[in-house]
Amino acid sequence: MKIGIIGLGLIGGSFALAARKHVAGCELFGEDQNRDHQKEALALGLIDMTLGASTYAAMDVIILAIPVDAALELALPILDQMNDNALLLDIGSTKFLICSTLEQHPKRNQFLATHPIAGTEFSGPSAAFATLYKGKAQILCEAHKTRPDLLEWAVQWFKNMEMEIKEMDPKEHDQHIAYVSHLSHISSFMLGKTVMEKEKDEQAIFDMAGSGFASTVRLAKSSPAMWAPIFKQNQENILEVLGEYIANLEEFKSLMEQQNFEAISQKMQQTNAIKTILAGIN
Amino acid sequence: MKIGIIGLGLIGGSFALAARKHVAGCELFGEDQNRDHQKEALALGLIDMTLGASTYAAMDVIILAIPVDAALELALPILDQMNDNALLLDIGSTKFLICSTLEQHPKRNQFLATHPIAGTEFSGPSAAFATLYKGKAQILCEAHKTRPDLLEWAVQWFKNMEMEIKEMDPKEHDQHIAYVSHLSHISSFMLGKTVMEKEKDEQAIFDMAGSGFASTVRLAKSSPAMWAPIFKQNQENILEVLGEYIANLEEFKSLMEQQNFEAISQKMQQTNAIKTILAGIN
Repeated sequence: MKIGIIGLGLIGGSFALAARKHVAGCELFGEDQNRDHQKEALALGLIDMTLGASTYAAMDVIILAIPVDAALELALPILDQMNDNALLLDIGSTKFLICSTLEQHPKRNQFLATHPIAGTEFSGPSAAFATLYKGKAQILCEAHKTRPDLLEWAVQWFKNMEMEIKEMDPKEHDQHIAYVSHLSHISSFMLGKTVMEKEKDEQAIFDMAGSGFASTVRLAKSSPAMWAPIFKQNQENILEVLGEYIANLEEFKSLMEQQNFEAISQKMQQTNAIKTILAGIN
Repeated sequence: MKIGIIGLGLIGGSFALAARKHVAGCELFGEDQNRDHQKEALALGLIDMTLGASTYAAMDVIILAIPVDAALELALPILDQMNDNALLLDIGSTKFLICSTLEQHPKRNQFLATHPIAGTEFSGPSAAFATLYKGKAQILCEAHKTRPDLLEWAVQWFKNMEMEIKEMDPKEHDQHIAYVSHLSHISSFMLGKTVMEKEKDEQAIFDMAGSGFASTVRLAKSSPAMWAPIFKQNQENILEVLGEYIANLEEFKSLMEQQNFEAISQKMQQTNAIKTILAGIN
């Protein structure tokens, strides 16, 4: 079984390590536009050999682990070149656009759209680790459009990785994920920006910032190359969600201006219920 | 040495445990408005005996570990009752108002205003642990106004707790802390609120929310009883900071509407520099 991985950062590299662990006798091929990352992935043993346009047809599985704009661009030409029994796997953070782009492709049933809900704020091959996906949700979109034998193979692999398989409509996926992932990233980036603009004296930040601050701005370390294309592809949903977030902050601000701390307290109390939701996340 | 602690939650309870560990032969007295918490603190061994108005004069040290509005109210009458060699320690998250309130008190030199930069999103006596403050910053305000012998005793205790002592003007403290702590809490609370309002289907949140979401909304679990008074006392600084945060979010939204993902990318890139700041926080 030959597995090709395009994009050898945290996400692709961790899939490589998970394949090494759970797919018996697999050979791992990989490529990365960043040649230093490609060399590093070889040196770290994430992959055995480099992948290239001339070897796509020899692969049994190809995983697109690159920013969502690049994945959208490459998916069609790669699917064209793949052999008739191979599977193309996409693992990006937006699902509607790639599903609709491949909708009419003659090899549509060799494609599986997924979104593993896993990641860290680090990037590059050295950030990859074999258990990144263990215990995490793996969302499949339009799984019924994938050839049963190919789907079964993929699902079995994800189960061996101890992922929790969920199915979701691509449009719904993009709406929900705007709330529970994309908005968090924007909130975190802008929080980091606000503090850095004002707090020119970095030492004061060092001295006074605690674990709460670290927690809320952790995502501001994320890679812009990965996130700008996600924001672009999920623009409509994100704009709606971001508008609601700003409206809530404006309301909080106006309650503070009115000195209505009773109402503020009440809103915080209601939001405390998030405890039960967070208890379900690992 | 008799140490009295008013407020036996996470913050006060952890000071009790740290006293037990680092102040040889101390006797620990404590009280909490919440009688269940007071009983729990006794049962957990955080304190040895209950504290009350009739015993304030017998204490060598009294620590105010209650919400900042209650601390402000109690500080004056308690200081009135304390004996002439005792130390009153305040550990709240706002410093300007309490320092100016006690400014003219005849026993001002028996008061020390501090802010230990430590906490978790949990509350109550059971959340307390002896090493909460280990390695964390302890900010002293107007330390020169505290009697040298009392100051020396307190600083030695904080050093034994392995805290890092910093000094800061109370006004400056409140300005900085609005950026690196108070804003994070508001951002987190409103993020949680936005998601909970929209995502009525909790199961979808469970399925799709990952560690990034958990990290950004962690502080939304914080206690409103503690935080509403902080927002009130630091209103002016917080309103300024919150206004800047909203303006940054508005700018991000407007760049998205203009499809200017180049500019968005650039802003994220600049904010990535927060890595170096976060590296200094434990």
